[in-house]
Amino acid sequence: MSNSYITGSFEGHIDFINYQDLVEGASKVIPGPSFGYIHSGAEDLYTYDQNVTAFNHKLIVPHVLMDVEQPDTSFTFDNDKLTAPIIMAPVAAHALAHEKAEEASAKGVSDFGTIYTASSFASRSLEDIRAAGTTSPLWFQFYMSKDDGINLNIIDIAERNGAKAIILTADATVGGNRETDRRTGFTFPVPLPIVKEYQSGVGQTMDTVYNSAKQKLSPKDVEFIASHSKLPVYVKGVQAREDVNRSLDAGAKGIWVSNHGGRQLDGGPAAFDSLQYVAEAVDGRVPIVFDSGVRRGQHIFKALASGADLVAIGRPAIYGLSLGGSTGTREVFEHLKHELEIVMQLAGTQTIEDIRNTTLRNNNFI
Amino acid sequence: MSNSYITGSFEGHIDFINYQDLVEGASKVIPGPSFGYIHSGAEDLYTYDQNVTAFNHKLIVPHVLMDVEQPDTSFTFDNDKLTAPIIMAPVAAHALAHEKAEEASAKGVSDFGTIYTASSFASRSLEDIRAAGTTSPLWFQFYMSKDDGINLNIIDIAERNGAKAIILTADATVGGNRETDRRTGFTFPVPLPIVKEYQSGVGQTMDTVYNSAKQKLSPKDVEFIASHSKLPVYVKGVQAREDVNRSLDAGAKGIWVSNHGGRQLDGGPAAFDSLQYVAEAVDGRVPIVFDSGVRRGQHIFKALASGADLVAIGRPAIYGLSLGGSTGTREVFEHLKHELEIVMQLAGTQTIEDIRNTTLRNNNFI
Amino acid sequence: MSNSYITGSFEGHIDFINYQDLVEGASKVIPGPSFGYIHSGAEDLYTYDQNVTAFNHKLIVPHVLMDVEQPDTSFTFDNDKLTAPIIMAPVAAHALAHEKAEEASAKGVSDFGTIYTASSFASRSLEDIRAAGTTSPLWFQFYMSKDDGINLNIIDIAERNGAKAIILTADATVGGNRETDRRTGFTFPVPLPIVKEYQSGVGQTMDTVYNSAKQKLSPKDVEFIASHSKLPVYVKGVQAREDVNRSLDAGAKGIWVSNHGGRQLDGGPAAFDSLQYVAEAVDGRVPIVFDSGVRRGQHIFKALASGADLVAIGRPAIYGLSLGGSTGTREVFEHLKHELEIVMQLAGTQTIEDIRNTTLRNNNFI
Amino acid sequence: MSNSYITGSFEGHIDFINYQDLVEGASKVIPGPSFGYIHSGAEDLYTYDQNVTAFNHKLIVPHVLMDVEQPDTSFTFDNDKLTAPIIMAPVAAHALAHEKAEEASAKGVSDFGTIYTASSFASRSLEDIRAAGTTSPLWFQFYMSKDDGINLNIIDIAERNGAKAIILTADATVGGNRETDRRTGFTFPVPLPIVKEYQSGVGQTMDTVYNSAKQKLSPKDVEFIASHSKLPVYVKGVQAREDVNRSLDAGAKGIWVSNHGGRQLDGGPAAFDSLQYVAEAVDGRVPIVFDSGVRRGQHIFKALASGADLVAIGRPAIYGLSLGGSTGTREVFEHLKHELEIVMQLAGTQTIEDIRNTTLRNNNFI
Repeated sequence: MSNSYITGSFEGHIDFINYQDLVEGASKVIPGPSFGYIHSGAEDLYTYDQNVTAFNHKLIVPHVLMDVEQPDTSFTFDNDKLTAPIIMAPVAAHALAHEKAEEASAKGVSDFGTIYTASSFASRSLEDIRAAGTTSPLWFQFYMSKDDGINLNIIDIAERNGAKAIILTADATVGGNRETDRRTGFTFPVPLPIVKEYQSGVGQTMDTVYNSAKQKLSPKDVEFIASHSKLPVYVKGVQAREDVNRSLDAGAKGIWVSNHGGRQLDGGPAAFDSLQYVAEAVDGRVPIVFDSGVRRGQHIFKALASGADLVAIGRPAIYGLSLGGSTGTREVFEHLKHELEIVMQLAGTQTIEDIRNTTLRNNNFI
Repeated sequence: MSNSYITGSFEGHIDFINYQDLVEGASKVIPGPSFGYIHSGAEDLYTYDQNVTAFNHKLIVPHVLMDVEQPDTSFTFDNDKLTAPIIMAPVAAHALAHEKAEEASAKGVSDFGTIYTASSFASRSLEDIRAAGTTSPLWFQFYMSKDDGINLNIIDIAERNGAKAIILTADATVGGNRETDRRTGFTFPVPLPIVKEYQSGVGQTMDTVYNSAKQKLSPKDVEFIASHSKLPVYVKGVQAREDVNRSLDAGAKGIWVSNHGGRQLDGGPAAFDSLQYVAEAVDGRVPIVFDSGVRRGQHIFKALASGADLVAIGRPAIYGLSLGGSTGTREVFEHLKHELEIVMQLAGTQTIEDIRNTTLRNNNFI
Repeated sequence: MSNSYITGSFEGHIDFINYQDLVEGASKVIPGPSFGYIHSGAEDLYTYDQNVTAFNHKLIVPHVLMDVEQPDTSFTFDNDKLTAPIIMAPVAAHALAHEKAEEASAKGVSDFGTIYTASSFASRSLEDIRAAGTTSPLWFQFYMSKDDGINLNIIDIAERNGAKAIILTADATVGGNRETDRRTGFTFPVPLPIVKEYQSGVGQTMDTVYNSAKQKLSPKDVEFIASHSKLPVYVKGVQAREDVNRSLDAGAKGIWVSNHGGRQLDGGPAAFDSLQYVAEAVDGRVPIVFDSGVRRGQHIFKALASGADLVAIGRPAIYGLSLGGSTGTREVFEHLKHELEIVMQLAGTQTIEDIRNTTLRNNNFI
Repeated sequence: MSNSYITGSFEGHIDFINYQDLVEGASKVIPGPSFGYIHSGAEDLYTYDQNVTAFNHKLIVPHVLMDVEQPDTSFTFDNDKLTAPIIMAPVAAHALAHEKAEEASAKGVSDFGTIYTASSFASRSLEDIRAAGTTSPLWFQFYMSKDDGINLNIIDIAERNGAKAIILTADATVGGNRETDRRTGFTFPVPLPIVKEYQSGVGQTMDTVYNSAKQKLSPKDVEFIASHSKLPVYVKGVQAREDVNRSLDAGAKGIWVSNHGGRQLDGGPAAFDSLQYVAEAVDGRVPIVFDSGVRRGQHIFKALASGADLVAIGRPAIYGLSLGGSTGTREVFEHLKHELEIVMQLAGTQTIEDIRNTTLRNNNFI
């Protein structure tokens, strides 16, 4: 990390009651431009805001007398027993939030017991991330290079470090129109070691970084990865029915519903509103991961009841990281798990499978 | 009551025009953490707020030339002639609001002439409540113990004190995620004598209190109560169609539609929006009680026109209690009765039965 | 008028651009409690606010190349040529707004050239009103007494003064729950000469005044008036389909859609939303008058296109009266006529008949 | 230009991130009444505000793996290769915004490479505009005179200056009810040379100016222009299905969907909401131009996907003009083109044709 960059450095218990507390706390330890980069979204923030409010489009009807006690959030996915179907979303450059960066977040996620998705734009090498998060399954999020040789090298790095899936981010082939970053003049103050063959990172704007990666993504890129790796490929950023079959036909083994946290295309749908369409198109053929706008246990419940197998969080975990290192990261996951448990009890669902069998009520009064 | 706890103590006439006046007045006499406990709801208050605004989802169409004069709110329920089909909802620990606690509220409700539902978590014994509210029908709200012996004792207490129904609260098998209580550090400053065999109350958080009660409720608990008592059992907290038959099949003799005043599951429907679904499922087989969000005579009218037989109020009565003891409690009921009379006159309904035969207009412009 | 009551007294041109200007101006010349009485509505003002915003539920689609120039707002109704189908709604006690009271407003309306509806609760006798508004058709709004002898006297007064219709207000058989009046302690500072046989007015609350009138209205009252007078009877306050036939079967010759300016039943529909239902039920059999929420020429256009024959205004005219006497009253009508002309030109409608043949577009995005 | 009128005069690069920046900047260099005239709209600004928010009624669903890179906004229209299908809308009196007026805006638009629509109420002659914008196609917006001889002269001027289309504005046969102009007392401080035969402009209100033009427009006026000119006639201000055939039957060769930027009829639909109806009625027979409310690249995308061939901007360009002359004008077009490129990449559309083949998702949650 750049020596002159000062951010969160505390390791230990954090005190918070909800996401808003995390936002307020993080805004005080993360330098302004970096905080703006992490926190904000595209253009007028319409889609960004909808990502959260859209969860009210479906309502959880409490069910009573359901013989539920101490609901069980554990979930076995791909032979791994997870503490809960809540996983770490790929987020660039954790060093923006805490000096221990991905080493701390990976340890926190591992301590909690769930999947950690490392970003191509991580501020630590996969080796260091792997060493820090020893027990959690590792997934690798891939921003492809324009150079296939480099891509093969990166795939090799992922495989060598035990990644169990490659997540091809497909919704960020250009930087979204993030006005906050242009107002603050944000550039990366830290290097991006995993992709250093095509992008060093330091001093670069997000637009430059995205432009250095491959923009002309197509089903052939899924085929390329699938043919050079035994790891399953997930396509991340799917919101359209049509994109499901195009992805699966090319060899994708998973679909990740996301709108990149409202950071890419404003004027598009909330990710949660897209989830039901994608789930219908997937129809159980492959796992579905969901992210974008998840701030509450009830959001996780609603995503699982709408077809998601796993729900990923980004900003909440990063703010926990900024405030308490690995402990803060873990505590954010535990907090969401606890909120989910309350919702499960009140909704009358003992297990994650029960959630998946729940029918939400359409909200007719939006 | 704990000697050091200071709250409302005035007995007499209160001056108010609407619920907001009661809220403002009560916030000045009830200590902050207790006021927060009574007033607030779960998480982001979405469902809490919807509880009130949802009444606008259905509109009362005024009917003219209906030969109405001095409408009659009286209602005979279970052979008791009530001044109006407005009853007292179970609310924990009235001592939080007024030093005379349930003795004052029971007297006020009795003076008004309607049903008083005593909470398991009352701050007075059922004997004292019964002695104070001599003429009103008494209902007993039941938070079951994990110990059936204790449950039999509590049922016995209810029967000995002349309770006419047992209300099994089923939507609070765990404390809702009430962030206000966590911010204020609320604990009960007063004992809970009715459930003292399993929970003393003083110094306990709400979460602890709920956890000490039985969480694993099922239809068997309805059967248990029904088999050990001749009193009719109402299941409280029903919002789903499916829960109606599960309750009735187990022996329930009444259904209470409620979301616990928005204090339990946020992200669920407004209670009023659920009422129509439940009423369809009940289809007249048993009485329906409704609460959650009732602040106006028009809300009572709309609930009755949507299938409720009785409408319960909580916070308005407690705030009246805090400001004027038994008189304040009675005056809140009288105030709502008066608002209801105006609505009845303008809607062209002479009797409660006329209200029940009224069709509300769907609001297409929400 | 009570000597000590000071209100608007200026006679002459008023400067205003829209209704909000009138409100602000009037609030400075009309004493607080009287202004509150005139301006406010029932309870939470939901229906009151909806009265205005509901006009956005239907949209005027501009039509071009329609060969329109200097549209003609004139309208012949019941053999009277009106300057526009905009008439004066009945409003109690114009002396609250201006010392010349109904004498000024009647002159202003007459100068403009449209129908003047005098309220039973006018602060001038019908003789004085008639003498002031010599050329405008006079309608008489009737709050019936509980005493039929008094009613016959009042009908006789109306007939003797040349009233051309009797408007039976049916939606105010009790005072609405108007909290502003209770907060300000409003009582009438001026007498009500027309109904002096049953209500003197001075020092009385609105509730008392309404209670002194007949509450138990039924179709028989329509029959009573129709049998004792050759004047056509309009039933005012109709919003329900069912009330149309009940009114017409009893002999009503006109239907007045209104919710009393949002002053009576809160939680009911906006009057404009009710208009279409009533118009369908009337189906052209009798004239329809519309009021409640009309602030703009576009509102008048929308009401006419939705089935109204005449559109009545209340508060705008009263505020014009308060600010400029008869001139101010007239200028408010002229202003609305001018706004209507602009809308007619842009909507491609040369005549009032063209408006009535216009189909509004439903607004699907509320 | 009137010597005493001071407005923008800077020529050069402008710094802005979005439309709001342009508004704030322009409000500082354009005198208040002129800024109000340009910026504001009719009456309560309901339609004005809806013009922008209505774009959220349709959502762009991101499509991934679409093999897109560096999308191409270029578009060939009527044999002219445009940099993008974004054109200059007719706006009166650019001298209100910048001392170089239409000479600067025409140069800026020409430098960008798209169509420039000169207003009849331009503050420069068509000769001067033509001379300044040498390479952009010129369209002429026509406010007809009441005198056909004058009209023939104006058509002749347009033809002599190489105009490629005549745009008959049909939605402004009278000035909209623009209250801001009446509050500020706005009158034109500059002459209107193109229409000087019927209107000099200086010191005139907008109402007077509109009234001096022809109000009684009908299909015969389309026929008149078509019969006296070989130029294609576009009818501007169409929002109703019925107006399409009336226009085309009279000889119109293009339809321009617009509500005049919300400046004419308040209480009507957002222009974007009307676009789909008009596009269905046109059914590909003639080109469709769209304006009103366009502030973003995503708005342009949505309009093109909803049936528009060309999208026109007014206020954004005028504010760019005020801040930076021809350079500022050009930069606003470049900015919107750049935003559109980002949207195209993220929506998976390589070309303008791809956009036109895109199906937007209806937003069910408004």
